[in-house]
Parts: sequence; structure tokens; C-alpha cells
Amino acid sequence: MNRTNPIGIFDSGIGGLTVVKELEQILPNENLVYFGDTARVPYGSKSNEAVIEYSKQDAKFLLNKNVKMIVVACNTASSVALNDLRKSFDIPIVGMIEPGVKAAINKTKNGKIGVIGTHATINNKAYSKELLKQNKKLKVFEKACPLFVPLAEEGMIDHPATKLIAEEYLSELKKKKVDTLILGCTHYPILSKVIQEVMGNDVVLIDSGKAASSIVENYLQGRGLRNESHQIGKREYYVSDLPQKFKTIANTFLGKPINDLRKIDLEDLF
Amino acid sequence: MNRTNPIGIFDSGIGGLTVVKELEQILPNENLVYFGDTARVPYGSKSNEAVIEYSKQDAKFLLNKNVKMIVVACNTASSVALNDLRKSFDIPIVGMIEPGVKAAINKTKNGKIGVIGTHATINNKAYSKELLKQNKKLKVFEKACPLFVPLAEEGMIDHPATKLIAEEYLSELKKKKVDTLILGCTHYPILSKVIQEVMGNDVVLIDSGKAASSIVENYLQGRGLRNESHQIGKREYYVSDLPQKFKTIANTFLGKPINDLRKIDLEDLF
Repeated sequence: MNRTNPIGIFDSGIGGLTVVKELEQILPNENLVYFGDTARVPYGSKSNEAVIEYSKQDAKFLLNKNVKMIVVACNTASSVALNDLRKSFDIPIVGMIEPGVKAAINKTKNGKIGVIGTHATINNKAYSKELLKQNKKLKVFEKACPLFVPLAEEGMIDHPATKLIAEEYLSELKKKKVDTLILGCTHYPILSKVIQEVMGNDVVLIDSGKAASSIVENYLQGRGLRNESHQIGKREYYVSDLPQKFKTIANTFLGKPINDLRKIDLEDLF
Repeated sequence: MNRTNPIGIFDSGIGGLTVVKELEQILPNENLVYFGDTARVPYGSKSNEAVIEYSKQDAKFLLNKNVKMIVVACNTASSVALNDLRKSFDIPIVGMIEPGVKAAINKTKNGKIGVIGTHATINNKAYSKELLKQNKKLKVFEKACPLFVPLAEEGMIDHPATKLIAEEYLSELKKKKVDTLILGCTHYPILSKVIQEVMGNDVVLIDSGKAASSIVENYLQGRGLRNESHQIGKREYYVSDLPQKFKTIANTFLGKPINDLRKIDLEDLF
């Protein structure tokens, strides 16, 4: 494997761009290839079998771009498909769950950890299983916050309705006095300001994407695989449908416009 | 064609159940077969080519159930795929757009009509084109209300956040003094109470699904194809993924539980 090979990142859609933003901060010189499976978004409402199949196709697409490792920048795919991906492909694959769990365990003082995510991520208890595997004594409280995704995509970051909805979603977690809250969906960092306001400044928010980016850095460092170029890395973006919509929303998620974006045919994934 | 053959209804997911509810009211004795393409929901974020292809597959599935006519209970599919469906299949096919447009033109007094729908329906101007084709002098004002779909699916019918969001979405249409508002998404009738509150009681809400049900009744009557049984018709429901989630939300949309629900494999549609 070559140091200059890109890091591959995939998501069911656009949320994974918050992970790209973190990777760019920590590893600006790495080349990145992003694939957003916008033709089949969202994965969260699909069966496990479908998510596993699609995730394998997404990973294969990235492998064809000669990536040196893969980041599964989608909590649903991470929770459902990571084991299958690791069995199927002989390349390091980083998901969202384990890094988020490790970061939360490092931060919590009272052992009460909250997890928020989509219905899919919360229903399959991906985070709570992993948290309790690491430490049986933890108290874990989970809450699905499905409206956070469309609110983030609509850019309703400072809207009073978002605050109302956040207050309702988070009230139970506040009552339980969690001191650490895992943002278990790559869309949620977009709403971190309102989530922090509602939870209070004493609660530590864990951005799983940020935590995963540190794992990626450590891995590349440890294997001597960091790109040592002094130039900013190349970024290539691919989507399976509607590139225009992706471009429009990308600004909110990445904090800057996307230039190199290409649409691929879904058939090319099969 | 036999009178006792069922009416087929398809939607990208669950929204079409509001149309089933209207059909059941007007035509209780008809047999109904519903297909919700939950494996590929939502159609609104997909390209026109994809929506046309999926709609043809959905229609074929219903034809295999020997339906006597098809109701496209999805505004996106109606606006994008109806012509292609009618060219491809030799069976009467009723969409959402024309019935909604006719009902709105019958109701408006001041000639100012509002249309709300998903980004897809509003962006391709399906309603405004058809309204202006019928009457050039109409003033049409359109507004995408993307959050109404997840708010309806979450059952947040009476929530203050829903009211806040509705007030923001609808403020421009109120300023324009529309006297008629087309609910151009089959999810929106679930939120009709709050929409009516925000718009005021003088504004007539047009439920396209209800309007389409009248068209279906007239058609069957005119062709001597009404089921003359005195018993309540049979209802069969099919989805392409996650039947449990569909069942849970169906209660809100249909006003009663669904019994006869089966999951089919997506491959069976190809």
C-alpha cells in the first residue's frame, strides 16, 4: 500500500461530510475519495440485509479507487455492516461506533452516557451494546431523534422549532443526568450548538466522526502510511444520484463548496 | 375486466395510505391491493429516470394482482412518471396532480391557488404547469414543505414545533392571499388540522388523494366496473422492506391497524 493512496469514505448520503470535515482538519495532506449513495439514501429505514449488501458495494467502489483504508461515515452502516465488511475486504475499515464509544468512556465522570441517533441506530442498540461490552457498570440512555436529519438538511440550525424539538427529544436524557452525549448520526454535529444549549455546558458532546478521524490518524501514523506531501490533498466526491442537491446541501455540512463531484450509475456498483 | 377485480394503489412508502382511507370511504365494497415501495422510499430525492423505472416496476407488480385500474398515490411518481406509465400499460391510471388541480379550480374564487409539496414536486412545477394549462389567468404560489413528511411520520400532529414550522412555511402563501391550498403530498392530510389553523378557516384545503378517489368512483361507475358486492372489500398490503415499521406508522395514516401485510423481495419487481 502506498502512502499517497487516498482514504476512502462512504455514507448513505451527505451526513458523512461532517466526517470529511474532521479528517481535513486532522489530516489536510491526505487525498480523500468520498462516495455518497444518494440513490439509496437513507439506509436507516432499510433492512439489515439491504444495508449490508449496499455497504459492500460502496466499499468495492472505493477499493477500485485504490484507497488505503475505508471510513464508514454512516452510523447505520457501521452498526449493521462493519463485521461483514471486515470479513469481506482485506483493508483497514474504521466505523463510527467503536471510536464514539471509546471517546465517551474517556470523557464520562459519572458513568452516565446518553446516545442519540436515527431510529435504526437506536433500535439495534449498536452503541449501548458496545459501551456495556467495554464497561458493564455504565448507565446508558438512548433516544432516537429522527427529525434532526431533515432539520440539519434544511439548514434549520438556529430555528426555534429545532430548539423545541431538541428540548423534547433530550428531556429524558437530561433528567437522567448523563454527563456525556454521543452524537450517533453523522448529521447531528450540524446541530451541535442547539444540542449543547439544551443539554447545558456541563455535558460533553461526542462527535463520533471526530473520534473516528483520530483513530484514522493513529492508524496511518502507526503503519507509516501517512501522506507526507506538504500540499493540501486532492478531494474527489462521487454520488449515485442527484449531484445538484448534494452540492447545495454540502455547503452546510462541509463549510465550503464542493468542486470535484461526479455522478456514477447505480448499475456500476453491482 | 371483471367488476370484482381489485383497485391497485402504489406509493413510494406509506403516504398513499391517506388515499386508501379516502377510497375506503367512497368505495367501501371495492377490493384494494396496496404496494408501498418502502425499500426505495423516498422517490422525492431520486432522479426522474429512477422514479420512472421504479414506478413501472410498481405498476407491473399490481398488474400481476389483476387490478382493474391503478391509482398512483404518490405525488412525485404522478408528476414524473404518469405519462410513461400510461404509454406502457393498457389500463386506466389515475394520478394525484390532475384531480387535485381540477378540485382546486372548482373551489377558488379569487384565482389565487397555493401548492405545497416535497422539494421534488415543487421543483418540477407539476401542479403549477397543470393549473396554468387549465386556466392561464390563475395566480399560483408554490412552497416546498419537506419537514411535513417526517413530522407526519413521527405523529407530531399537535406539536407546537409543527405549528411553528407550518407558520414559517405557509407565511408567504398567506401574504399572497391564496383562497385555495393544494396538499400536494399524500403525507400532508395527516397535518391538515394545523395547516388549516395556520392558513385560517377561509382557505379551502384540497386533498389530492380525496379528489383522485372521486375520479376513480366516476370512472368505475361510467364503465360499469363498480364492485356490486354488499360486503366490505378485501384489502391486501405489500411492502418491499421493513413491514413492522410500516405497520406501526400505518395506524396514524389509515386510522386503523393493518392486518393483511406481506413483504415482497425487491428482486421480484425487476
